Amino acid sequence: MTDSVATSLDISRLSTQDADFDARLEALLAWEGVSDAEVQSRVEEILRGVRERGDAALVEYTNRFDRLSAKGMDELTLGAERLRQAFEGLPVEQREALAAAAERVRVYHEHQKPGSWQYTESDGTVLGQQVTALDRAGIYVPGGKAAYPSSVLMNAIPAHVAGVREIVMVVPTPDGILNELVLAAAHLAGVDWVFTLGGAQAVAALAYGTETVPRVDKIVGPGNIYVATAKRAVFGQVGIDMIAGPSEILVISDGATDPDWLAMDLFSQAEHDEDAQAIFVSWDAEHVAAVEEAMSRLLPTMEREPIIRDSLAGRGALITCRDRDEAVALINRIAPEHLELSLADPEALLPEIRHAGAIFMGRYTAEALGDYCAGPNHVLPTSGTARFSSPLGVYDFQKRSSIIQCSADGASVLGRTASVLARGESLTAHARSAEYRIKD
Amino acid sequence: MTDSVATSLDISRLSTQDADFDARLEALLAWEGVSDAEVQSRVEEILRGVRERGDAALVEYTNRFDRLSAKGMDELTLGAERLRQAFEGLPVEQREALAAAAERVRVYHEHQKPGSWQYTESDGTVLGQQVTALDRAGIYVPGGKAAYPSSVLMNAIPAHVAGVREIVMVVPTPDGILNELVLAAAHLAGVDWVFTLGGAQAVAALAYGTETVPRVDKIVGPGNIYVATAKRAVFGQVGIDMIAGPSEILVISDGATDPDWLAMDLFSQAEHDEDAQAIFVSWDAEHVAAVEEAMSRLLPTMEREPIIRDSLAGRGALITCRDRDEAVALINRIAPEHLELSLADPEALLPEIRHAGAIFMGRYTAEALGDYCAGPNHVLPTSGTARFSSPLGVYDFQKRSSIIQCSADGASVLGRTASVLARGESLTAHARSAEYRIKD
Repeated sequence: MTDSVATSLDISRLSTQDADFDARLEALLAWEGVSDAEVQSRVEEILRGVRERGDAALVEYTNRFDRLSAKGMDELTLGAERLRQAFEGLPVEQREALAAAAERVRVYHEHQKPGSWQYTESDGTVLGQQVTALDRAGIYVPGGKAAYPSSVLMNAIPAHVAGVREIVMVVPTPDGILNELVLAAAHLAGVDWVFTLGGAQAVAALAYGTETVPRVDKIVGPGNIYVATAKRAVFGQVGIDMIAGPSEILVISDGATDPDWLAMDLFSQAEHDEDAQAIFVSWDAEHVAAVEEAMSRLLPTMEREPIIRDSLAGRGALITCRDRDEAVALINRIAPEHLELSLADPEALLPEIRHAGAIFMGRYTAEALGDYCAGPNHVLPTSGTARFSSPLGVYDFQKRSSIIQCSADGASVLGRTASVLARGESLTAHARSAEYRIKD
Repeated sequence: MTDSVATSLDISRLSTQDADFDARLEALLAWEGVSDAEVQSRVEEILRGVRERGDAALVEYTNRFDRLSAKGMDELTLGAERLRQAFEGLPVEQREALAAAAERVRVYHEHQKPGSWQYTESDGTVLGQQVTALDRAGIYVPGGKAAYPSSVLMNAIPAHVAGVREIVMVVPTPDGILNELVLAAAHLAGVDWVFTLGGAQAVAALAYGTETVPRVDKIVGPGNIYVATAKRAVFGQVGIDMIAGPSEILVISDGATDPDWLAMDLFSQAEHDEDAQAIFVSWDAEHVAAVEEAMSRLLPTMEREPIIRDSLAGRGALITCRDRDEAVALINRIAPEHLELSLADPEALLPEIRHAGAIFMGRYTAEALGDYCAGPNHVLPTSGTARFSSPLGVYDFQKRSSIIQCSADGASVLGRTASVLARGESLTAHARSAEYRIKD
């Protein structure tokens, strides 16, 4: 269990009993998606350009960054009919798998719909909240190698279930390459419009609106550093979801899961990109060694071996801990995006888990099942942000209005309290407004 | 109803039938809380200082900006005992009013607690969400003239109801001035620690932690442009609530509410500060004139007359519209923070209202009652952000973890779908991880 053991697998090996465990874990977890001053100023220029010149700027930036030669926004716009064609053109196996996944995601998210509520007090005063959907949502879908149809489903279906009136999707098409699966997923998920735009210019179009692109109320979906910087800048003008870091998984095993299964679960995270993080934890040292052996043996058979190798070397870890309690403490400290509890009795641990994006329970629940089709959302808080944020959900596409309806009697009683407090804050118009409603 | 009528009241008068109505309304609503490059760079320097030098930087910045001469953080720290003393030292009338308000706010927010949920599919697969509270929340309370005890209740009580383990409050004390009502409210609301810090340095302390100030998971509460800029910068490191603009109200009346009441309701918004916005709308032109007369007559009697006058002149408006439908369209276009429906039948309008922070229904429901003690939160989305965001609530201090527990049968079926989709995305480790769970 130390780095000095010669092995073909380049990955950090830690034990919670090591003197430098805390520091090494901290260093492994450290991640900052900082945009430097140069990125900042380029993004600001693009935002300003789109805001001031609308479609003309959009076409210009898109031609430059995506190496296209569009003459106008009509060449960068795809309507509902084009999306339907993409769906119908898919091989039947893919079409059915996509439809099955979409249906499961839809059913799960239907369970998330919060309702409006109210209650009436004894004097007739009514209090509550009215829940309504956003008018228009914007979905950012990365293009190129990271264009995932599953992400289209995961971002657009909750908006659709929430009752959003119009869903606008943007996806860049570098060198004109269009992903038919992505368009097919947009069709299934209820997307109304697709614009083949990306980067900060796509974010600007959604935030401010142009002659062609309608302004949206919220922008969701992952993107590169330009997209993340632009989202942070327009936050307030429009709503945004979390700014996503690289994807990560923490796998906990009690020693009884097939090491090959665990190795592949770790690889499925590591294959995303070089920054992705896969961490394995067990209190069974022999099991940790067996998982390591499986990883070494299976790695050369992987299609994306170079990416997995880089990811494991840079950010992966095999951690041996003392017992279950230490494993729980590690979970809550890391607040992982994906948590796999490969245990006989995962339910027993659940009440102790305070921070995790998604919890995959038991030996059969591979993260990959959740990524595609189990039903829950695969857009999850990364880099420890599960401490304060949630999976993307229907609630992200709804908002609430407080309802206050005072009866004459209720207003009279509340008026007295409000008057005292308002005068304590020297806000006398508040006080006098309340006092008008006090009965003599 | 035109600007040419001589009057003692300086306020915009608009009619929806004016040719330039849209443009004038747009100009009135325009608000951008932009921080310029100078503010940006000063904030970044402060954030870096606190991050690198902790308490020492905190004491240094606080002494400089708040004109203090503290020697260490112990002089800038107030514990639970000090807060209790503040509460017990209040005049009995204020103590009782504060306690009554706190109790009503608590009861209302108890209704907001979402529960964990799960469902079991026919093959035994379990799906759901587990709701948990944040470990630690930070409440920013402005100091000086805008130090409002009611804001302490409104920010801290939802955190307390949510089950947050530790609530840390920061409030600047410029020139050493401490507001006993604010400390008393902190005691009532369940605040654990108060640090007398403000500005970007307080935000930095909460976001990164120092030797004395514990790092929190989310920062809520309003502040000046330095606070807002710092919150935007640390977003991602920690959660933040919305970045608040000036407060605003839209009052709709059917013509039967006492014009004096309506004038005072508008003043109660305008008295906050010069940027606050009060807009009155009715389809009864004579009623609009009567409200204007009441405003002219009452304005000289107001303690905060100069602020109200500036606010009305700069951002206020009296709008005459054609009918109820036009009033509803105006509501949804403005998406007001506060909406007062001073109507005989406000319930009839409710289903048509898509965007509003809080809706005050009927003639008795003055906004001031909601500001202090009706129960709902007074921290509300401003500047049209009710299009996509909600009142501060218990849900802001909780987060969700997805629960996925596949049965062996469930995993086998899902594995097939996941395998097809993963191979469509060229993620073969995902596919093989899913395929291990397919039964032969």
